[in-house]
Amino acid sequence: MAEARTIFLATDYGLADEFVGVLHGVLARLAPASRVVDLSHGIAPYDVAGGAALLARAVVHLGDGVVCAVVDPGVGGARRPVALERDGEGPRHLVGPDNGLLLQAAQALGGELRAVELHRTDGGAATFDGRDLFAPVAAALSTGAALADLGTPIASDELVELPPPVVTFRELDDGRLAVTAAVTWIDRYGNVQLALHGEVLGTAGTAGLVVRDEDALVRIVHTYDELDPGTAGLLTDANGAVALVVAEGSAARRFRVAVGDRVELVGDFEAVS
Amino acid sequence: MAEARTIFLATDYGLADEFVGVLHGVLARLAPASRVVDLSHGIAPYDVAGGAALLARAVVHLGDGVVCAVVDPGVGGARRPVALERDGEGPRHLVGPDNGLLLQAAQALGGELRAVELHRTDGGAATFDGRDLFAPVAAALSTGAALADLGTPIASDELVELPPPVVTFRELDDGRLAVTAAVTWIDRYGNVQLALHGEVLGTAGTAGLVVRDEDALVRIVHTYDELDPGTAGLLTDANGAVALVVAEGSAARRFRVAVGDRVELVGDFEAVS
Amino acid sequence: MAEARTIFLATDYGLADEFVGVLHGVLARLAPASRVVDLSHGIAPYDVAGGAALLARAVVHLGDGVVCAVVDPGVGGARRPVALERDGEGPRHLVGPDNGLLLQAAQALGGELRAVELHRTDGGAATFDGRDLFAPVAAALSTGAALADLGTPIASDELVELPPPVVTFRELDDGRLAVTAAVTWIDRYGNVQLALHGEVLGTAGTAGLVVRDEDALVRIVHTYDELDPGTAGLLTDANGAVALVVAEGSAARRFRVAVGDRVELVGDFEAVS
Repeated sequence: MAEARTIFLATDYGLADEFVGVLHGVLARLAPASRVVDLSHGIAPYDVAGGAALLARAVVHLGDGVVCAVVDPGVGGARRPVALERDGEGPRHLVGPDNGLLLQAAQALGGELRAVELHRTDGGAATFDGRDLFAPVAAALSTGAALADLGTPIASDELVELPPPVVTFRELDDGRLAVTAAVTWIDRYGNVQLALHGEVLGTAGTAGLVVRDEDALVRIVHTYDELDPGTAGLLTDANGAVALVVAEGSAARRFRVAVGDRVELVGDFEAVS
Repeated sequence: MAEARTIFLATDYGLADEFVGVLHGVLARLAPASRVVDLSHGIAPYDVAGGAALLARAVVHLGDGVVCAVVDPGVGGARRPVALERDGEGPRHLVGPDNGLLLQAAQALGGELRAVELHRTDGGAATFDGRDLFAPVAAALSTGAALADLGTPIASDELVELPPPVVTFRELDDGRLAVTAAVTWIDRYGNVQLALHGEVLGTAGTAGLVVRDEDALVRIVHTYDELDPGTAGLLTDANGAVALVVAEGSAARRFRVAVGDRVELVGDFEAVS
Repeated sequence: MAEARTIFLATDYGLADEFVGVLHGVLARLAPASRVVDLSHGIAPYDVAGGAALLARAVVHLGDGVVCAVVDPGVGGARRPVALERDGEGPRHLVGPDNGLLLQAAQALGGELRAVELHRTDGGAATFDGRDLFAPVAAALSTGAALADLGTPIASDELVELPPPVVTFRELDDGRLAVTAAVTWIDRYGNVQLALHGEVLGTAGTAGLVVRDEDALVRIVHTYDELDPGTAGLLTDANGAVALVVAEGSAARRFRVAVGDRVELVGDFEAVS
């Protein structure tokens, strides 16, 4: 096999059990020349939306390869196992359950999408498609298998799509904009990413912030370093989204917010969603 | 060196400290062409039995290579450092402390077993055999060293063996079977694996369940998807063992069980242990 | 590219988010033939001193390569991004923020140090130098780029240095030594490493121990195995430092100590700091 493309893994398996190690073992056996990169295995159990958001953030920084992603509460049920193919920069293939996990990443990458529902092979367990179906398919794609040989074509507009996170704009009497946006991600540091493009912040220097029942006026900055340690602010994060942050601290803890909560911002913003 | 086989690592080192990174560094230095796969480093500290069970579950899915496993409360003491060799499918070598960690995996793989007590080299620390002894030996085996050159032969039936987990069968007056089995594993999702082959479930459709002081009647299913979210059931898991599960939830939390606890099942079962 | 040296990563990114996966993705793209080894991503958020200590412990066990380390509360601010080069055994290059993270490791490795302040390229985010600056530089160095082409030379004695951990010696009237040393590391098992060379213990057989308000007399041993399970002792750990340990237990929990706390030891010690 001349071809051996990188395989990118993302799952909710965690690292305590041997699930991820077994995936790597299967890939080492079936695609010994392919590099395997772990994007994350720390997606919360069954959190398809969190996994989809993680993949969409990550894939735009990757080169060519095969994304193999598993967050799969419906394993063994009616949800379809799929492989997607696209052209252009970044990973050309994505493999996993058709439950919304993959589509957001494919859209972030762009390019026309071709999809197949994967053929099942005999003999696998009913409850571990990652090991028995998705990893073998990723290995096959990484070593040159053709998409059409792995499954039955399905229309890409029939793929399951998750509802987009909430974001609404309201113009105030004084010309300022009030934006309500859902929290899409809280990272290890407690940075609170919102469902809001950074361009919304425009040239505004401060923003009124309403989280739960708290009001605050925060500065809009470019880097954490502009804020005194312990001080809250808003910035455009490394994914181009608005994030509520606390310098050397946790904004999630300070404002007691979780993914899915809504945050209201008021300021001289631009109406780009 | 033409040969460069995969090295599979499993330890109780965790990933916060640099222990695992140092193992990888040593292997990169001594066996630069060998692929290294992390099976898991999340075995609970000093949990030899948990590590042995994890290895036994994992190795049957691996190709050829060298398993290097370390859960080693007796490091520096009388327990022997060993390397095992076997023939047939799967990893041909296993390296680690002779405290029961490796033997269950070797038995799961099958094949006649040859064993050596490893020679020590000078200069290592007394407390980090993973870095100073086991990883170098795994590197040597992965690049073609002969088992006989690494240590002194010992009889494989003198290797330390852990007591098997509890499982007992009792026939009831009405012809049903009452099975008591120890919990062998609780995975990230809270699935509760029992020391019981899936074939025991036979064609039974339901089972009476006694956990702690609670009684429940649960369905026997093939996939999580057959259960409504939040509902408990029994299924044959991806390792072929009986598991108590809750769809999209944690059976361990629901029934407040831990590894080593006993669960009683009553049903129209088959008496295969 | 003929050259492809190992890249060693250490960060405070954690493994739940995709940060580490994205670093690996960037490296797979820019240096496809370079092996990547994760030293640790479990450094506590913003803990520069903890990261520096971890690196210093780890690098002496590594072969040639490029260390890419990121614990960077000042990202985007005035702190300089740097690359260091040295000769001799072990990693030849270290890349990261100039905030004290790298220097201790470079000193542990030894050799004359050359340093550059890294040139920035356009287009990166202001808050993710690991992805946009340090990983690309590490990729370049691993594939043969010259240090001088990556930045502006700076004097190595101008690099930021962290204050050394506290250690003081006091001779008692009876000729014994009282040593006060800071806790530098608590590992997964709860072993408590002190800022004290193992040689200090000399041939002493026991030591008086003062931690918080507790007094204890503990044995000085070579291995955990000499201690009954649950018993505390002192030993020279695998890094050559004095460690307070509890056999098959956690010394940190037993003595309720944290990194930075001070421990006093009294015994027939040698005055080597």
